[in-house]
Amino acid sequence: MTTAPLLDRLHTQMAFVQEIDKLKRVLRRNTLMDGSRRENDAEHSWQLCMLALVLAEHAPPGVDLERVIAMLLIHDLVEIDAGDTFIYDPEAVLHQPERERAAADRIFGLLPDDQTAKFRALWDEFEARATPEAKFAKALDRLAPLLANHHTEGGTWALYKITADQVRRNAKIIEAGSPSLGAYATELIELSIKRGHLSEG
Amino acid sequence: MTTAPLLDRLHTQMAFVQEIDKLKRVLRRNTLMDGSRRENDAEHSWQLCMLALVLAEHAPPGVDLERVIAMLLIHDLVEIDAGDTFIYDPEAVLHQPERERAAADRIFGLLPDDQTAKFRALWDEFEARATPEAKFAKALDRLAPLLANHHTEGGTWALYKITADQVRRNAKIIEAGSPSLGAYATELIELSIKRGHLSEG
Ligand SMILES: [Ca+2]
Repeated sequence: MTTAPLLDRLHTQMAFVQEIDKLKRVLRRNTLMDGSRRENDAEHSWQLCMLALVLAEHAPPGVDLERVIAMLLIHDLVEIDAGDTFIYDPEAVLHQPERERAAADRIFGLLPDDQTAKFRALWDEFEARATPEAKFAKALDRLAPLLANHHTEGGTWALYKITADQVRRNAKIIEAGSPSLGAYATELIELSIKRGHLSEG
Repeated sequence: MTTAPLLDRLHTQMAFVQEIDKLKRVLRRNTLMDGSRRENDAEHSWQLCMLALVLAEHAPPGVDLERVIAMLLIHDLVEIDAGDTFIYDPEAVLHQPERERAAADRIFGLLPDDQTAKFRALWDEFEARATPEAKFAKALDRLAPLLANHHTEGGTWALYKITADQVRRNAKIIEAGSPSLGAYATELIELSIKRGHLSEG
């Protein structure tokens, strides 16, 4: 049976679990791959983990896939407070770091202290994009909406008048985490231009 | 740059990625923890992975968390073809294994052969519930709807007239993967009965 301090710890963990259920209600700009509706952050996070599993061979040699997946699972939790920031909106991007750090303080702070430290370190690592694990995780985070837009005749690109050069800059972040996925992203971008779903602007 | 056979392989992997996006449209019986709408399988899978990260200390010693999480990421993919099976519906449960095996053949079969074998082995391991990893993964899968029902005044229990004894049998599966989480599940069940959200039937 569970003793009292352990049960307190479990109740603290469960309060965190209940709070992060809200991630399912944070909507992103892009749609599902069939265009049927906007995607939420929780299902987006699942998809990124699936990309990590399926495309693991595109990570640089020696990358710790367990840490990549842990980062991807938690990377968007700050959006429960800070909201989804559209990467092509310069206004929104400006104050994003402060808003997200405050959110990280509050949300990871709900966990028992040792886990607050552990989860925060993972999130900081993802944001800093300095380790091969973080670079690969970020590459997948940038690849996913490109896939969604490619499969929905331009999706949010057309809607928000995003130019090919903006998407090409985004592809550099993919390349930094995985050269082969960066090359694939470039291929998708050129194909989208050829089909008239993305314009040079 | 990517050579032709590697690019073929990547295109095969991406066809799988596109197919499994459909998991976001498979609805489960239970709602989100705030009761606002029914949960889909993709966000459910994300939540189970978060439970695995947060509650890792409740797994038996020596459990490989990376394999637990990989199993949880893929465990519901078969429902793209087979649909969500309500565990308290005896009719539906009857033909579930055949339907799900056929789905596994088709869906994992979309991957390159080496990955078909790897993903299928993970899914078979989860289904067989023989390893500590599979038992712990299944415990989390059974804990999640109990949490959702507990937080929504009985949720699907009331709706589908589920009795306390049925939920107690379900808690045995939680206990088999994690004695401490099994004890916690029992605590939630008794609390739900006391509050009048679950009846002895
Ligand atoms: Ca994001």
